[in-house]
Amino acid sequence: MNSHNIQWHSHSIDKLKRVQQNSQKPCVIWLTGLSGSGKSTIANALEKKLFENGNKTYLLDGDNIRHGLNKDLGFDEHSRVENIRRIGEVARLFVDSGHIIITAFISPFLNDRYMARNLVAYGEFIEVFVDAPLEVCEKRDPKGLYKKARKGAIKDFTGIDSPYERPLNPELHVKSDVTSVEEICLIIVKYLLENNYIQNNILSHDISVQSMDDVSPLSEKKPRSYSQAEYELNAYIRKNYPEWECKTIQS
Amino acid sequence: MNSHNIQWHSHSIDKLKRVQQNSQKPCVIWLTGLSGSGKSTIANALEKKLFENGNKTYLLDGDNIRHGLNKDLGFDEHSRVENIRRIGEVARLFVDSGHIIITAFISPFLNDRYMARNLVAYGEFIEVFVDAPLEVCEKRDPKGLYKKARKGAIKDFTGIDSPYERPLNPELHVKSDVTSVEEICLIIVKYLLENNYIQNNILSHDISVQSMDDVSPLSEKKPRSYSQAEYELNAYIRKNYPEWECKTIQS
Repeated sequence: MNSHNIQWHSHSIDKLKRVQQNSQKPCVIWLTGLSGSGKSTIANALEKKLFENGNKTYLLDGDNIRHGLNKDLGFDEHSRVENIRRIGEVARLFVDSGHIIITAFISPFLNDRYMARNLVAYGEFIEVFVDAPLEVCEKRDPKGLYKKARKGAIKDFTGIDSPYERPLNPELHVKSDVTSVEEICLIIVKYLLENNYIQNNILSHDISVQSMDDVSPLSEKKPRSYSQAEYELNAYIRKNYPEWECKTIQS
Repeated sequence: MNSHNIQWHSHSIDKLKRVQQNSQKPCVIWLTGLSGSGKSTIANALEKKLFENGNKTYLLDGDNIRHGLNKDLGFDEHSRVENIRRIGEVARLFVDSGHIIITAFISPFLNDRYMARNLVAYGEFIEVFVDAPLEVCEKRDPKGLYKKARKGAIKDFTGIDSPYERPLNPELHVKSDVTSVEEICLIIVKYLLENNYIQNNILSHDISVQSMDDVSPLSEKKPRSYSQAEYELNAYIRKNYPEWECKTIQS
């Protein structure tokens, strides 16, 4: 038996129905940055805020992935790619289930992040570069990992003896050394609101008072082909939820 | 770097908060049975019914798993175990996110299903044995796989040249050769209602008129230790949602 013998069924309850049920446009919020840049802290605070707004969210991070689904993986080249691939695939399932899924992984390589982006439809992947200078992250060293890496007790540690490839064109670029966690969350929430991923239930009074100085919005996107399902979803949303129409898809 | 260097954060939004948000007790509905026994058809019809009742559900099957997360896996011994392990881990994540997650895989081996069961808390795993005689399944042969297996074009095909280990003590045992898909769905929904996984919104008039003759309820359960988190969740539910208290946990 091989995968050619696996046939596709169409599921009765599809992404369109879930968009209706959850009143949100599902997406991946992919946080990337050095260890200690604040990804997990931001992810938790962001999820709390979205939950309070009534959104259906879930958070993938080292805790629930490395100890579970990916516990068989090491940290070699193959494992590193496979780690991100599986996270991307699980994120895709959560998007298909109608969730806003937040991921918090260093994910240091452009190719790996590009792979994850391409697992979901155009407009469903929001890359957030959580940027802080290495010196700041190393000084924070919340898990003591930089210390271990400097001593050589950890090999291939991002920023020390393995590179971090900065995002070339992320949807959002935030600087966690000069912007507070709370402000970064609001920047992300504002992006979600402006691009109609979510509707504004209780968040507006927070948003309006915040500075947006630290946001580098996405200026141009790489061309990317649409799938039939994307076209259908977007057409459906345009027709039935004109107020949700996603600007990033529109452009 | 190794997994000892990964630390656990506590997430702000945990399973308890999701139970509140979704008004349902998350669980895995694990359908097991021969190819052609009707698992996918039942899974789809069940998800439709639960969706209409306002529940948050998702369906994992060969379509969204074998073409995505598990596309790197073959059908050898290691791959077979790893296939079910990953499905179990993804199901665990969906349960953690508050979903009722339905899985539709042959999953022919006791040990593999036992592994999947043990990834979630006691009372969160509902094994449904979709039982039909091999002759019936082979006659249906919706994907033409039995024909290929008989010709030797597919090796290690369950029921032909690889065994199916019948569940010893499933939560539900339904016979798809004598019970209709609609009735089987109602049997499962009735179990969910009676054990307070879901609340009855629009389903009751359907349920009351159905025969339950084909249900073999779980008579005795294997002893299984509780985790701290399970105790906390159950205590929380008992306190705050007495009407949801799960009888399978209670006993």
